[in-house]
Amino acid sequence: MSEQQTKFILPESEIPTSWVNILPDLPGPPLPPLSPATGQPAGPDDLSAIFPMELIGQEMSGDRDIEIPEEVREAYKLWRPTPLIRARRLEKALDTPAHIYFKYEGTSPAGSHKPNSAVPQAYYNREAGIGKLITETGAGQWGSALSMACQMFGIECEVFMVGISYDQKPYRRAMIETWGGTVHRSPSDLTEAGRSQAEHPSGSLGIAISEAVEVAASSENANYALGSVLNHVCLHQTVIGQEAIAAMDMAGEYPDVVVGCVGGGSNFAGLIYPFIRENLENGRQTRFLGAEPTACPTLTKGVYAYDFGDTVGMTPLMPMYTLGHDFVPPPVHSGGLRYHGDAPSLCAFVKAGMVEATAIPQTAAFNAAIQFARAEGIIPGPEPAHAIRAGIEEALDAKQAGEERVILIGVSGHGHLDLAAYGAFLAGELDDLELSQDELDAAIERLPEAPAIA
Amino acid sequence: MSEQQTKFILPESEIPTSWVNILPDLPGPPLPPLSPATGQPAGPDDLSAIFPMELIGQEMSGDRDIEIPEEVREAYKLWRPTPLIRARRLEKALDTPAHIYFKYEGTSPAGSHKPNSAVPQAYYNREAGIGKLITETGAGQWGSALSMACQMFGIECEVFMVGISYDQKPYRRAMIETWGGTVHRSPSDLTEAGRSQAEHPSGSLGIAISEAVEVAASSENANYALGSVLNHVCLHQTVIGQEAIAAMDMAGEYPDVVVGCVGGGSNFAGLIYPFIRENLENGRQTRFLGAEPTACPTLTKGVYAYDFGDTVGMTPLMPMYTLGHDFVPPPVHSGGLRYHGDAPSLCAFVKAGMVEATAIPQTAAFNAAIQFARAEGIIPGPEPAHAIRAGIEEALDAKQAGEERVILIGVSGHGHLDLAAYGAFLAGELDDLELSQDELDAAIERLPEAPAIA
Repeated sequence: MSEQQTKFILPESEIPTSWVNILPDLPGPPLPPLSPATGQPAGPDDLSAIFPMELIGQEMSGDRDIEIPEEVREAYKLWRPTPLIRARRLEKALDTPAHIYFKYEGTSPAGSHKPNSAVPQAYYNREAGIGKLITETGAGQWGSALSMACQMFGIECEVFMVGISYDQKPYRRAMIETWGGTVHRSPSDLTEAGRSQAEHPSGSLGIAISEAVEVAASSENANYALGSVLNHVCLHQTVIGQEAIAAMDMAGEYPDVVVGCVGGGSNFAGLIYPFIRENLENGRQTRFLGAEPTACPTLTKGVYAYDFGDTVGMTPLMPMYTLGHDFVPPPVHSGGLRYHGDAPSLCAFVKAGMVEATAIPQTAAFNAAIQFARAEGIIPGPEPAHAIRAGIEEALDAKQAGEERVILIGVSGHGHLDLAAYGAFLAGELDDLELSQDELDAAIERLPEAPAIA
Repeated sequence: MSEQQTKFILPESEIPTSWVNILPDLPGPPLPPLSPATGQPAGPDDLSAIFPMELIGQEMSGDRDIEIPEEVREAYKLWRPTPLIRARRLEKALDTPAHIYFKYEGTSPAGSHKPNSAVPQAYYNREAGIGKLITETGAGQWGSALSMACQMFGIECEVFMVGISYDQKPYRRAMIETWGGTVHRSPSDLTEAGRSQAEHPSGSLGIAISEAVEVAASSENANYALGSVLNHVCLHQTVIGQEAIAAMDMAGEYPDVVVGCVGGGSNFAGLIYPFIRENLENGRQTRFLGAEPTACPTLTKGVYAYDFGDTVGMTPLMPMYTLGHDFVPPPVHSGGLRYHGDAPSLCAFVKAGMVEATAIPQTAAFNAAIQFARAEGIIPGPEPAHAIRAGIEEALDAKQAGEERVILIGVSGHGHLDLAAYGAFLAGELDDLELSQDELDAAIERLPEAPAIA
């Protein structure tokens, strides 16, 4: 066996010094979010009750690059740069001429890409004199990342956790508490929104968002934090793609196709936006492929329209592919992919045909995850298992075409806290939970009245 | 804030090419294991029914260094070299002049140091034409590591899992199955040993060992594998200490004291043996400190005597510190530290005063783990939390003495699958479960008749 390099890890000194702001590269001018009250474009004042001005500025910035503060880079050093790994054993198992690489975010203390944005959000809020961040969490990935980040910058963290997850997923709750955060079971009796939903004791992400926003908006010293969808969140995640470009260069290769999973879109955006800029500026022709669950097929079966970000309709209206804001996805195990919409910036690229999308059934994703774990050791989260499945399909396609295609897969987190789902899959207990067209049509029919998008 | 390096990660090319065999460096000639049947020194023939000759050779080798096979090094590349991390935030939280480093084995796919030995054990057995490895596991760390390793080398893996863990820790069981291993609840009806213990349905490590050895000994094509205690296991783990020496050199420092947790002893041995050789050959004066739980105080309160490795008395008698082979430690959450004895090689160094030991109460260990997690992000396993506590005490001692002491802590694994224990600790539900002297005396009185050790 020859001495071949497997892992490509940049030195700490190559942690990016700025984030890639994709807004100037969008296909056409950015469509503004609309105020739910007036139907007019929402401005900074609509957001200042719950976000600090620095993040509001990033949300709307026209600067191509935004400098990463020194203290944020210092915190990134606890786990970044994350490894780029050549999946040689998977290539061999697939008997493909393709070169498969994956960028692995599971080495962060929270086990996912979420701290990439949690850390700067905690930093900018502390700089603005905010003493507490309030957020919602479903399965707990975002809540745990924000709890860790707040601890690093000496501010408090309060998390409204969807009731059924609070009951069934005590591990993530313990993680939030280990880092010093406080967890409330949602719906709670701490808020008007929570009290009004007492008849839905298992809760929902929509209710938890409403509770978190209500507390943040009515508090002098507390703000709200969101873990995906918004421009500033996608911006922070671009450390992933920038590192991937530099590490691929160490490996002497450049990807023909980049694949990632899509829930709210921030991990996929963070991976591909730096590569999109390379396509636009340096004549690269990389393809981009987002993988979503067939149980929540936003990009592949949704409509492109203005819709609310939350279930109950409190947030600004955003231009995006959506399945309708009150759509409740079936209970697939990829909690992080169960969102009715997608990041508006990512949707603009899909709409323009610059980014492709594919939908993967739950059992196909777990099959791919098992194949990956048996070849590469790493047990991926159920969310990136969708990207792995799409990447494997690319590798098999390359085999059929006899191409040495270079495939880069984003593996956004580990699956250590999802092993119950692996057990259920191996016991033959998982279904795909695909949606009927009638169910999709019914949800989309309930879209709010808002200007159509050309 | 100045640009200071936090992580020191060697390139793949510096994965060690040989293991450090400490047997030639023991203080005095190695004491032989004794056959339980004859009371005479056990030889290769006593072991060949369950181990391949290569591992038996390593168990007794007088070579200073043993070459690591190329295929094993290739497999190590999936996660090695592991990071050495300067715990700057912990230093700041403790306000200590000490420099604290930790060598982190939690980045392996199984989440601990265990694959360092599982991989070569699977390799040597496959090379010997063995088609299946059989083992026991308690909480599941070793069983999962061996399942992953067997998958890599295309052989089967069968794991007898202690009944109560099988029922209460489904995550580790799913991990074993994800990598292709088969799990039996022990006591099972597959073995005579298991059937004879049907009245103890929750099982024990001792019963599970008996079942695994019985199946392996009676099978042509299957062998047994052990995850700690034996010389060849400690040998394989010396990749940890060798990498630590090289990475400390990158940081421009050398440790004054090296701290690790001790269960069977293999992770601590793997960390310190290369440093012990440096002391002996290059005049270094590093101190070594093993941390064990007060609920299982083998090195600090056990006797140095010949005793069985298992509970029921099937294995050779080994010279070690022991609490008595039928001692059942209280149910602390550090499953990996609940062993009545310790690696004979490590015990020889403790007996000679070349290695120190300290016992840490369970709640003190969890307190230290929380402090570590809030400073460094990483949530450690409950086992290395004992080492972290002992390391923090060293750092506070250095503060009092005004010394810039350099402390290296072995953090042998993450605590993602132990978050229920963190939750219980944070809810104030954990006790120290310390032992009374009467309980210790009673267990030690039941030691087998065997030659006393001078």
